[in-house]
Amino acid sequence: MNPCDSHSPTASNGLTAQSTGREVRQAARSGRLSGHTSGLAREQVQANLAILPASLAGDFLRFCQRNPKPCPLLAVSEPGQYLLDELGEDLDIRSDVPRYRVWQHGELVAEPTDLREFWRDDLVTFALGCSFSFEHGLLAAGIALRHVQQGRNVAMYRTNIATRSAGPFHGPMVVSMRPMKAADAIRAVQITARVPEVHGAPIHLGDPALIGIGNLARPDYGDAVEVLPDELPVFWACGVTPQSAIATARPAFCITHAPGHMLVTDRLNRHLGLG
Amino acid sequence: MNPCDSHSPTASNGLTAQSTGREVRQAARSGRLSGHTSGLAREQVQANLAILPASLAGDFLRFCQRNPKPCPLLAVSEPGQYLLDELGEDLDIRSDVPRYRVWQHGELVAEPTDLREFWRDDLVTFALGCSFSFEHGLLAAGIALRHVQQGRNVAMYRTNIATRSAGPFHGPMVVSMRPMKAADAIRAVQITARVPEVHGAPIHLGDPALIGIGNLARPDYGDAVEVLPDELPVFWACGVTPQSAIATARPAFCITHAPGHMLVTDRLNRHLGLG
Repeated sequence: MNPCDSHSPTASNGLTAQSTGREVRQAARSGRLSGHTSGLAREQVQANLAILPASLAGDFLRFCQRNPKPCPLLAVSEPGQYLLDELGEDLDIRSDVPRYRVWQHGELVAEPTDLREFWRDDLVTFALGCSFSFEHGLLAAGIALRHVQQGRNVAMYRTNIATRSAGPFHGPMVVSMRPMKAADAIRAVQITARVPEVHGAPIHLGDPALIGIGNLARPDYGDAVEVLPDELPVFWACGVTPQSAIATARPAFCITHAPGHMLVTDRLNRHLGLG
Repeated sequence: MNPCDSHSPTASNGLTAQSTGREVRQAARSGRLSGHTSGLAREQVQANLAILPASLAGDFLRFCQRNPKPCPLLAVSEPGQYLLDELGEDLDIRSDVPRYRVWQHGELVAEPTDLREFWRDDLVTFALGCSFSFEHGLLAAGIALRHVQQGRNVAMYRTNIATRSAGPFHGPMVVSMRPMKAADAIRAVQITARVPEVHGAPIHLGDPALIGIGNLARPDYGDAVEVLPDELPVFWACGVTPQSAIATARPAFCITHAPGHMLVTDRLNRHLGLG
């Protein structure tokens, strides 16, 4: 699974990088948008989504609190609450994401574009920060991102770094990797350290074997990109981590967004301290 | 030359890590202290010193302005001014540094403990930030520094990174190197980025060959320390850079501090944003 899929162009139905969060959500709600949100509403914060029954919500909330770098919480709903004013005007979590994934006991059972038939009064929504936001900041600072240049999805890897468990949720930290020259890596540390809401500073750089990654050319999620001889691989905690923990926990019922089909909020990346 | 020499214990004449800047300066002035200042007055900012004739001061000032990472200016005097209230109470630059070096046409001609017989009305004093300050911050953050643990001087290297020249001042950037695990290197970037007054963020990490360093085991200044397999070498711009540029320019007359015998000011490291 891949919450922050590629930056590839999206069939836009009039939507652009300058669209507002509300315009993107309305397009998703009306069925005009069922594709990726990458490249749309670039000023706005996009979020990873996890929707769990209230019986598991306490455990998952503790899991996020104990692992803030992979699981930076932007918002948590009340049980059954589907209007999330905190994240955006007229935001209905049942309809405003372009595509969802519905899971039962860890198996994918549906990929709907609307949740109304699946909604339950005990569902709690978690919105988690996404690396789209800090990539925006890195690009604004003039730091090239190879996967963006090549229209690929970012490369992601399971590590040997254990998350801190809570209830049934546990498993390895998943990281995303971006190759950079050392001077850019140093600047990227400074830029992303300012935004703990979207994974914060890298958790590793240099030798991948030190965090249990055997082969950079074989990512566990996403697409491989080349690391040039004058570059270092730089690793950030990744929003796939909580999805991986959910997959491990195999809850009787849960919902996530489909990879790359993010919740677009009204929050502004620049309010996170990004350009 | 080495402006920030080892952290080895100093014959203290009652001076300690808790001494004030003024106490250290008074001991230097009275002759009770002619040794290193490392480990003394740890709360206070220590500075590299360069004293040049006014005829060269404009060029050197531009050199510092153009190369702020190796040459972070803390203060510049008026020509002939030897009382530097800006840096400390009752601070007399002619007597308050434990040991000086006097240079003529690039040759060392004296290592006095007092400058009064060398003083001229056209001399301009430059005080430059020193890595003692940020090492204080790194240690306070729990980041071990191997050269400190081993009582050695930090390892320093000439690089293939050119400084931006000004008048006769030019030459390669000199860097200091500290080996760290990646997670500590990432924290060290964040900590030192906050203190541009004392060299700021690293300028490189990882492969030394990329900045023209052939062999880490053979530093150009200071003492080699081992880099373990799970560590990266992390490189900071170093205050030896301006001394190296002065040595290249071979001015008819100039004065520096003797390596490790720093000017101890009244400024507090914690006022730089360091713990």
